[in-house]
Amino acid sequence: MIVQFSIVPLGVGVSVSEYVAKVIKIVDESGLSYKLHAMGTIVEGEWDEIMDLIKKCRDELFKETERLIIDIKIDDRKGFSGRIEGKVLSVERKIGKEIKK
Amino acid sequence: MIVQFSIVPLGVGVSVSEYVAKVIKIVDESGLSYKLHAMGTIVEGEWDEIMDLIKKCRDELFKETERLIIDIKIDDRKGFSGRIEGKVLSVERKIGKEIKK
Amino acid sequence: MIVQFSIVPLGVGVSVSEYVAKVIKIVDESGLSYKLHAMGTIVEGEWDEIMDLIKKCRDELFKETERLIIDIKIDDRKGFSGRIEGKVLSVERKIGKEIKK
Amino acid sequence: MIVQFSIVPLGVGVSVSEYVAKVIKIVDESGLSYKLHAMGTIVEGEWDEIMDLIKKCRDELFKETERLIIDIKIDDRKGFSGRIEGKVLSVERKIGKEIKK
Repeated sequence: MIVQFSIVPLGVGVSVSEYVAKVIKIVDESGLSYKLHAMGTIVEGEWDEIMDLIKKCRDELFKETERLIIDIKIDDRKGFSGRIEGKVLSVERKIGKEIKK
Repeated sequence: MIVQFSIVPLGVGVSVSEYVAKVIKIVDESGLSYKLHAMGTIVEGEWDEIMDLIKKCRDELFKETERLIIDIKIDDRKGFSGRIEGKVLSVERKIGKEIKK
Repeated sequence: MIVQFSIVPLGVGVSVSEYVAKVIKIVDESGLSYKLHAMGTIVEGEWDEIMDLIKKCRDELFKETERLIIDIKIDDRKGFSGRIEGKVLSVERKIGKEIKK
Repeated sequence: MIVQFSIVPLGVGVSVSEYVAKVIKIVDESGLSYKLHAMGTIVEGEWDEIMDLIKKCRDELFKETERLIIDIKIDDRKGFSGRIEGKVLSVERKIGKEIKK
């Protein structure tokens, strides 16, 4: 399955990129296929490994904050993989040209 | 923590209430505190028990569908509980009157 | 269409119920059918009136904050209305009993 | 502000890339800065122009479907722009190396 998630800590000020950096380090170390974009991080893997990963990120941020808003969006499709790139390529093929990605 | 989630099966037609009903049965049997509203189900509990619950719902719906879009939104605040009702009451106190809930 | 939305101001501390209260006052004055729950506010209406309402809430909160995270989830179904209650009742009928709502 | 959105049509089968392609064509023609990734489309612009754009996409898909689930996530920060790239670069600077994007 592919999963997009974002974690917003409350009570730490307006800028949160420092916390996103902590999350990305954990994601990078997980060995899972991932991609960071401006609104979240996309990861591909199995349910348990992804949920464990997000929990690890949450536990890390809870060392410095009292409240977290976490958004998780899952696209789970039987028998498909390589979808972080594959879904975008599939749209490009339909349009017939390369698009901004 | 409190968690709102919704699961939308693709490829089963326009109406999905039958699938929501299957989810609610599983949530109800879990013994966790919950509330169903028009856009999702809210559950309160610990990380592992809620994630296991959502996974169980997903496994159930995968018996009949090939693709699921799952949305999970978490509000995780250290040291707080009873928040399915509590958060709404807190807003009501600020407004000074009862509101539609 | 029915729409669930939530607005989280950053840089104002851990508790945000004061800001939710401001939002609910504006929603209440709009005359639209709505319901507040622990994870957001559900409103029913037409595209323009709901988007104008959310913009009004955002403009109000921007008087006191520099950054807002806004989540909007729309369920738009041709020819259906009264869905804030209707969708939940439809699930109840499938289950054959009243559920927590 | 930057906005991520996705539109899922119900009742049209399991694959929806054909509908995403229609959306991307409209986004591309808008002239707004955008980026497509596996879980949605990110656009940067002002409130009205982005909401009008999403409405246009919705109207287009409603020609062929009866029900749409639309997700919109807004990160609205006063005085900032160029954030589709800028937010990711800000995280990279904190980590001290390039990341997958």
